[in-house]
Amino acid sequence: MKEIALETSKRLTIDFASLLDKEVTISGMIQNLRVLSWGAFLILRTPEYTLQAIIDKEKINLPLEQLMIESAVSITGIVKQAKIKDKALFPRDYEIQITEIALISTPGCDALPVDTTKKEMIVHLDKKFDLRPLTLRHPSDRAVFKIAATILNEFGNYLTSIGFTRISSPKINYTGAEGGANIFKIDYFGREAFLAQSPQFYKQMMVGVFGRVFETGPVFRAEKHATSRHLNEYISLDFEMGFIDSFMDLIKVEANALNAIFSKIKLECANEVDLLGITVPELNKIVCVEFEEVHEIVYTLYKKDYRGEKDLAPEEEKIISEHAKKEWDTEFLFVTHYPSSKRPFYTMDDPENPEKTCSFDLIFRNLEITTGGQRLHKYQDYIDKMTKLNMNTDTFESYLQAFKYGMPPHGGLGLGLERLTAQICGLSNVKEASLFPRDINRLEP
Amino acid sequence: MKEIALETSKRLTIDFASLLDKEVTISGMIQNLRVLSWGAFLILRTPEYTLQAIIDKEKINLPLEQLMIESAVSITGIVKQAKIKDKALFPRDYEIQITEIALISTPGCDALPVDTTKKEMIVHLDKKFDLRPLTLRHPSDRAVFKIAATILNEFGNYLTSIGFTRISSPKINYTGAEGGANIFKIDYFGREAFLAQSPQFYKQMMVGVFGRVFETGPVFRAEKHATSRHLNEYISLDFEMGFIDSFMDLIKVEANALNAIFSKIKLECANEVDLLGITVPELNKIVCVEFEEVHEIVYTLYKKDYRGEKDLAPEEEKIISEHAKKEWDTEFLFVTHYPSSKRPFYTMDDPENPEKTCSFDLIFRNLEITTGGQRLHKYQDYIDKMTKLNMNTDTFESYLQAFKYGMPPHGGLGLGLERLTAQICGLSNVKEASLFPRDINRLEP
Repeated sequence: MKEIALETSKRLTIDFASLLDKEVTISGMIQNLRVLSWGAFLILRTPEYTLQAIIDKEKINLPLEQLMIESAVSITGIVKQAKIKDKALFPRDYEIQITEIALISTPGCDALPVDTTKKEMIVHLDKKFDLRPLTLRHPSDRAVFKIAATILNEFGNYLTSIGFTRISSPKINYTGAEGGANIFKIDYFGREAFLAQSPQFYKQMMVGVFGRVFETGPVFRAEKHATSRHLNEYISLDFEMGFIDSFMDLIKVEANALNAIFSKIKLECANEVDLLGITVPELNKIVCVEFEEVHEIVYTLYKKDYRGEKDLAPEEEKIISEHAKKEWDTEFLFVTHYPSSKRPFYTMDDPENPEKTCSFDLIFRNLEITTGGQRLHKYQDYIDKMTKLNMNTDTFESYLQAFKYGMPPHGGLGLGLERLTAQICGLSNVKEASLFPRDINRLEP
Repeated sequence: MKEIALETSKRLTIDFASLLDKEVTISGMIQNLRVLSWGAFLILRTPEYTLQAIIDKEKINLPLEQLMIESAVSITGIVKQAKIKDKALFPRDYEIQITEIALISTPGCDALPVDTTKKEMIVHLDKKFDLRPLTLRHPSDRAVFKIAATILNEFGNYLTSIGFTRISSPKINYTGAEGGANIFKIDYFGREAFLAQSPQFYKQMMVGVFGRVFETGPVFRAEKHATSRHLNEYISLDFEMGFIDSFMDLIKVEANALNAIFSKIKLECANEVDLLGITVPELNKIVCVEFEEVHEIVYTLYKKDYRGEKDLAPEEEKIISEHAKKEWDTEFLFVTHYPSSKRPFYTMDDPENPEKTCSFDLIFRNLEITTGGQRLHKYQDYIDKMTKLNMNTDTFESYLQAFKYGMPPHGGLGLGLERLTAQICGLSNVKEASLFPRDINRLEP
């Protein structure tokens, strides 16, 4: 038996200002190395920094030839004011004059298959995904996923702060929540089971327990089409909320959650935002437009006739989103009252017109990022609706218990993490906002 | 188009002290209702409270017969000092003298199948799980999952505070990380794919990117045995950390993360802790014992001979855990240096004795809750080890890129959320710490 005292764990930060002209030691990976006649410029990647260090080859013991990009090293040196300021560096005001360098480990190859040292990585998207363990080390890719991590953390923290409880629902399901054919099948000890298309049923059941719940987790859609807007596995940010007056209560919570996220990105990812050259949005007012009105505007002003269609085409989402920006001064457009025929059975119909639903999508910078709405909450309403749709209520018996044993009026929404990240970061393909994207052709790495 | 101003979203809290003898209105579900000759005691469940309210039937318009347990209601009344103080109530010092009550919705059944109003729910475990949408509303069950939510939130927030980045790795995998037969197969567009047994490969790849990473998400194990310690789907709290000196660095971070979690539970779940009558542990010192030493102690002092076994039996974990509590004054025991033959290929062997590994388990209150260790980080070491084990390195090519393109020394661990929750809450079956448990016989709800 061995007893060891506790020690506080810490960030690997350096107080550069107070250590000016003093010695520091720090470990990291070599992000870039430019060897010149007198020595080298070295950029070190650490969990906290992308730091410039200067090697005078006369002053160190290690032959420079032993170093390569993506070697792990420990450097000791003197903190100096930076001479060269580069957007990809953090900090930008300080650099390290190396006095000692120790090689910790070296890549197991002679040359890297992609140059990750340039401002832009020149690589085809497929190859970029094939080489993810390397290409994700590029500063722009890292920046995207720092922002994604911040969104994911803040979604949970904001909702917790207003009294929502985090839940974890099973991803192996006995039936699908969203219906349709886009569901993955799994062999569960000889029985057929399915991968969760959404936590819909579970978050509703949990409203009965905690009143306000949220979940952040993977969902799975067996979509056969390969587009720049779809992933077969993605992270869904979901919440569900009891005792609402209408779906407007959901829209308000979403608007506040998004603003909390945007503030946090500005605060904690300032360097990443700067590096990517993006503008973090703000949601200053809630702008809603009815589904049918979108068809009308797109037809009247933009001469595209989608009237009669029961869903919005990607082209319409783009047109109305640009219209909203130009005419209504917002990057966020809530499209409400989708047709009943296109929404799942648990959606509440508009009491004034049962052809419409108490539901909405949020379109942000031309792309739908959220679907939400008020749900039915009375047991008999479920039985009636499902009977009308020729659904077998027995299949859904364990879910329907929630309503049988009492539920408040409620609703909720799902927000796609990768879509939100992609739109904030200005990525043209949502797959670039997934660390290890899954599509019909891609299952690796 | 309709424009709506932003409004701050708020917790549904009441400042009872300042509202004493004043009127409040609040909505919730009826947790309990005791009808007496003069009226009724009503316990209201809201996202924030389990609140006692008193109905004088002469003073309200609604016939009491219309109310039932699990109805949703809105009550208006006067805040009073509480007369009866009950552990299951929060707040305990105030109650509401109802002046108005509005029925919002009613269960779709005449009687509930289980009595959720008693201190203990008398129901067989299987039936309890069958009726989860109802049984989770019992105060003790809710308390367990408030604590689970707090653990899940704080694990992420603590690690973020010391410079770890949250990642989201795919759960549909092209190969298994842990090997063995306990892996679920999935039909991925006609190809065979697998459900993630752990985020192992991905978190290692991401150490190359961010240096320190964590993930909280579901993992899937096709274990065929039904025990009180296993779930087929559970939430794994994982971190992986670069530039470690040894696996002791991982143990230190875990100890601090656990203490951060325990502090948060004490702070935010005081009522739940009190209701469950549990003691939140503290990890005051790190106690380690070598794997072989456990066999020796168990043999010498407790006359059970497991020497020669390559893993710890549940009985041994129990014996050594109780021994640690009695002799070494700790509820947390880190068992180190497990045999190489029982650890996965990516585990680093002890340089002083390749029969042992630089790895550990954490046993907490008789149960293993964590497996962790240092990993190999050199590409050639992986090739050599996998060749020795007759593994096909081609299958793992995309994972091995991380090491080919350079990796620092690193390690990490996985902590089972349900096991940790169960041990903190004193539950004898880990399934009770899963909202909707999955086992060989259970796929619903």
